[in-house]
Amino acid sequence: VSATVGIDQATAGPQLHAEVQDFYARQMHMIDSGHAEAWAATFTEDGIFAANAYPQPTVGRAAIAQAVRATAAQLTAEGVVHRHWFGMLAVYPENDGTLRTRYYALVIRTPKGGQPVIHRCTVAEDELVRQQGVWQVRRRNVTRDDL
Amino acid sequence: VSATVGIDQATAGPQLHAEVQDFYARQMHMIDSGHAEAWAATFTEDGIFAANAYPQPTVGRAAIAQAVRATAAQLTAEGVVHRHWFGMLAVYPENDGTLRTRYYALVIRTPKGGQPVIHRCTVAEDELVRQQGVWQVRRRNVTRDDL
Amino acid sequence: VSATVGIDQATAGPQLHAEVQDFYARQMHMIDSGHAEAWAATFTEDGIFAANAYPQPTVGRAAIAQAVRATAAQLTAEGVVHRHWFGMLAVYPENDGTLRTRYYALVIRTPKGGQPVIHRCTVAEDELVRQQGVWQVRRRNVTRDDL
Repeated sequence: VSATVGIDQATAGPQLHAEVQDFYARQMHMIDSGHAEAWAATFTEDGIFAANAYPQPTVGRAAIAQAVRATAAQLTAEGVVHRHWFGMLAVYPENDGTLRTRYYALVIRTPKGGQPVIHRCTVAEDELVRQQGVWQVRRRNVTRDDL
Repeated sequence: VSATVGIDQATAGPQLHAEVQDFYARQMHMIDSGHAEAWAATFTEDGIFAANAYPQPTVGRAAIAQAVRATAAQLTAEGVVHRHWFGMLAVYPENDGTLRTRYYALVIRTPKGGQPVIHRCTVAEDELVRQQGVWQVRRRNVTRDDL
Repeated sequence: VSATVGIDQATAGPQLHAEVQDFYARQMHMIDSGHAEAWAATFTEDGIFAANAYPQPTVGRAAIAQAVRATAAQLTAEGVVHRHWFGMLAVYPENDGTLRTRYYALVIRTPKGGQPVIHRCTVAEDELVRQQGVWQVRRRNVTRDDL
């Protein structure tokens, strides 16, 4: 049983739940628009993006921005649009103000002139910290269902 | 950079975020149930529905209702069900109380006896105004990813 | 017109909307992780799970847990992962504190080494009651769009 699957664990409360949803929406609008620097700034300076699809985690804003630039260039070359959808978000507060979240994330892929498909189906877990009033991702773990 | 992609812009707050979600859910239940007049009443009298799939925007409740009636009749004739899903909702407040929203919207299409598919993947931007305590759409712009 | 499609009906308020979302996320994390007893405990003791895909409703926690165990074993044997996604949630309060909800629910199916697909597209309606501070499902009706 994952530490973050539980009905008995404290909830972060409805305000934080809606706040995190709004944060995630803005963050995904950035990545899907290819705004690499704005996207990287939603992570802490030493933020970590880890995924079972990659041998090593991506660490720090410069590397995180570079990964998005590379993906955006590839999508443009292929003539496809990616949309990241998050759903089934559960928010778990820690005593120190950190939030742990668990949610599902899809990548929906649409070629120009073609049909949208679900490109990836994943489960993600984040550690979020509030910095000067704004949420930032300290660590994100993404697990693809197909791997 | 779209005016409505930004982490630094003021948020509408968690209450408004959840309110808009509930409004959108009810609105989509109406259109997917073919309730054309109830759907049209969720727009202002002079409401505008614009989409990159259509040469002209649809303007005003009578025209907006008529468009839904036509689509509903066609779906019934084809024996398919459409479900509109919104996700990744970001809500941006204006000083005058108007809300601007940006979100992704899918149409999921299921034929009787068949398999559901993602029929459309879009990005939408709304202007919402509160009229007598109820949110209404003054303008909706829908952009299909495949076009 | 379904009793639960309406813009004029009272809303449960944004706090309850976010609370129910968090509850549903945790509940779906349980079923998709195969935590049958934890899942069953999110229903009332005499809870009812009814679906147009089944001739009879499943009644009571023991039967509800057993159904999940059977499904989880089958998915493991087939080498596929299911993810339940809820969306377009509308929450309607009753005078006695019961909540009625209406939402769309997808099952996304990913085979190991394969492509995710939408396995089911459904509409669901719940009766939720608060027991000792925690929401529980008294009745869930699920209607598949393809049937």
